[in-house]
Amino acid sequence: MSETIYSYEQLFQFTKAVFLAMGSGQEDAELATRVLLSADIRGIDSHGIARLSGYVRLWEAGRINATPQLKILHETPSTATVDGDSGLGLVVAPKAMQIAIDKAKAVGTGWVSVQGSNHFGIAGYHAMMALEEDMIGICMTNASPLVAPTFSVERLLGTNPICVAIPAGTEPPFVADLATTTAANGKLEILQRKNTEAPTGWIQDKDGFASTNPHELKSGGALLPLGGDREHGSHKGYALGAVVDIFSAVLSGANYGPWVPPFPAYVPMPQGMPGKGIGHFFGALRVDAFRPAADFKQHMDNWIQRFRSAKTAGDHEKVLIPGDPEREMEKQRKASGIPLLEPVVQDLAAVSQKFHLPALAALQDAT
Amino acid sequence: MSETIYSYEQLFQFTKAVFLAMGSGQEDAELATRVLLSADIRGIDSHGIARLSGYVRLWEAGRINATPQLKILHETPSTATVDGDSGLGLVVAPKAMQIAIDKAKAVGTGWVSVQGSNHFGIAGYHAMMALEEDMIGICMTNASPLVAPTFSVERLLGTNPICVAIPAGTEPPFVADLATTTAANGKLEILQRKNTEAPTGWIQDKDGFASTNPHELKSGGALLPLGGDREHGSHKGYALGAVVDIFSAVLSGANYGPWVPPFPAYVPMPQGMPGKGIGHFFGALRVDAFRPAADFKQHMDNWIQRFRSAKTAGDHEKVLIPGDPEREMEKQRKASGIPLLEPVVQDLAAVSQKFHLPALAALQDAT
Repeated sequence: MSETIYSYEQLFQFTKAVFLAMGSGQEDAELATRVLLSADIRGIDSHGIARLSGYVRLWEAGRINATPQLKILHETPSTATVDGDSGLGLVVAPKAMQIAIDKAKAVGTGWVSVQGSNHFGIAGYHAMMALEEDMIGICMTNASPLVAPTFSVERLLGTNPICVAIPAGTEPPFVADLATTTAANGKLEILQRKNTEAPTGWIQDKDGFASTNPHELKSGGALLPLGGDREHGSHKGYALGAVVDIFSAVLSGANYGPWVPPFPAYVPMPQGMPGKGIGHFFGALRVDAFRPAADFKQHMDNWIQRFRSAKTAGDHEKVLIPGDPEREMEKQRKASGIPLLEPVVQDLAAVSQKFHLPALAALQDAT
Repeated sequence: MSETIYSYEQLFQFTKAVFLAMGSGQEDAELATRVLLSADIRGIDSHGIARLSGYVRLWEAGRINATPQLKILHETPSTATVDGDSGLGLVVAPKAMQIAIDKAKAVGTGWVSVQGSNHFGIAGYHAMMALEEDMIGICMTNASPLVAPTFSVERLLGTNPICVAIPAGTEPPFVADLATTTAANGKLEILQRKNTEAPTGWIQDKDGFASTNPHELKSGGALLPLGGDREHGSHKGYALGAVVDIFSAVLSGANYGPWVPPFPAYVPMPQGMPGKGIGHFFGALRVDAFRPAADFKQHMDNWIQRFRSAKTAGDHEKVLIPGDPEREMEKQRKASGIPLLEPVVQDLAAVSQKFHLPALAALQDAT
């Protein structure tokens, strides 16, 4: 499939113009753009600008408020519950994470559960906000139901990611950002485009049998929790996805399980929704709330160096530290630009026409 | 293999007498016994009384202090770092969890990282302490290295479990207690005793190739992170096990990675240990720090009922909620007693002779 390469600056100008056209203020439009494109720059193409038209359609359907006023519904010194006022998750999430960070400054840790939000891009962006403050950052979100719990044929959970970002000293930070499924939906979409079989353990068909057909979800199939099947620990992936759902939505008053609103605007909303919007959960832990930050970082460096230098199996060059692949990709794409697949380019052309904005290719590369 | 059934009360009297003989005070001996046997009563036989002789040998080797004085090394309103003074993890852990609970009462959440401890039984006991207070409980620990990170042949992580216990209303609580490996070591031990092949994805041989030989760990093999291999998400299981290691030990100043002290007393201590003992991490979140407890519990009941009634695949009777199997087992064993395998019975006979205590079979069933 043909690709066109754009600079980060081109994508930034384009995306910001779209959010402004939706009615976002300058600051929110820039924030949403930074969050959205952090996926593209880190190589998680499924969660970046490829979704921009999806956000626009949600806004057209009246499901996204371009000028949200976040409200703290309930709080203690170390916690808060926030109503995202149906804003872009790309705006609500970093603001909620900032509340967690501020609480951690005051009492050691901060924990924020969010209702009334929408999809927030990659979990990694929000968790990594903590790193600059010498804090550990945690971020979770629930999402549209695509995953069947172990022994079930119903799709009751989203791919419900967890991100944990941990600062180090001279080493780059440890950043684990993982869907609680065997494979994230974005990985499956790549196979769909290539029309290639999926490995076993990724998906099941509508009757709960193992399948390798990447299009199985269109026929009532489901993604599988991390582990794949019971014998390989899928009950653990199911439990982790459930914890994310409960922390993000049962704590906050958002929708959970099968009632999480779908991302595609054309899919009807579920019946009998028990809450508001989708839910997120954020945590920030000040490292020096446990031990002096310099000690912690020195031992994190030691941890990272020991694991990175572990003896490898077969022809694997090295053992990776969580966050290594995304950081490599970021370096590469900052230097050489971000490739977009032809269908994404066409999709963005339609968005610019809708808002009478300059086409992506017409934007100057100011970098 | 032949089994003998004992009542909980018999096992309680016996175990408490052993801890008293090691020099523990009355209260600590009772606490350690309650924690240890919570594994047997919930059906996690690998972590219960079968390990009692192992704790005795650690004490004989001078690695367990029977009269520990816990010290808070560092604290903020929502956090503490605790030195377990080389005590039994069975005593240190519930005391550290209590500190987390007390902090949650004051400021909404409490988080405690522990150094200088030993193995603490099942994570579930400690996390579940939060339930009685209408709190969510979290518990993690690192453990002796048996697990190879993705792409490695070195054993650098323990089975590093995570437990999350969440209260409900009329429904029983949600209790997810999971090793971050495809299969816990206890499951592998069962196959070793039966001399039965392990499923693929559980273990690898010394060169990093998939293996089904349950004795592979004796020849330099390793347990695998949840996921099994890279294609099935083992980098996620590795990341989760790493997070447990870092929260438990890099935050607290305990040993981490390959330096975690081994449970078998005959295995020499690692060279160049960077910390003290093994590490744990505990969290307590007051539900009403986010929303009124009654609202939360009503939605948890709704969550649980929806998942429990999900349409099942094939001939599976129902979708389980994390904690269901252990609770069923507890009901059954409270009624009919706890079966011990012959080698465990012999092992306990040797323990009673060592301390000149009455044999297990001689103890009255006072229940």
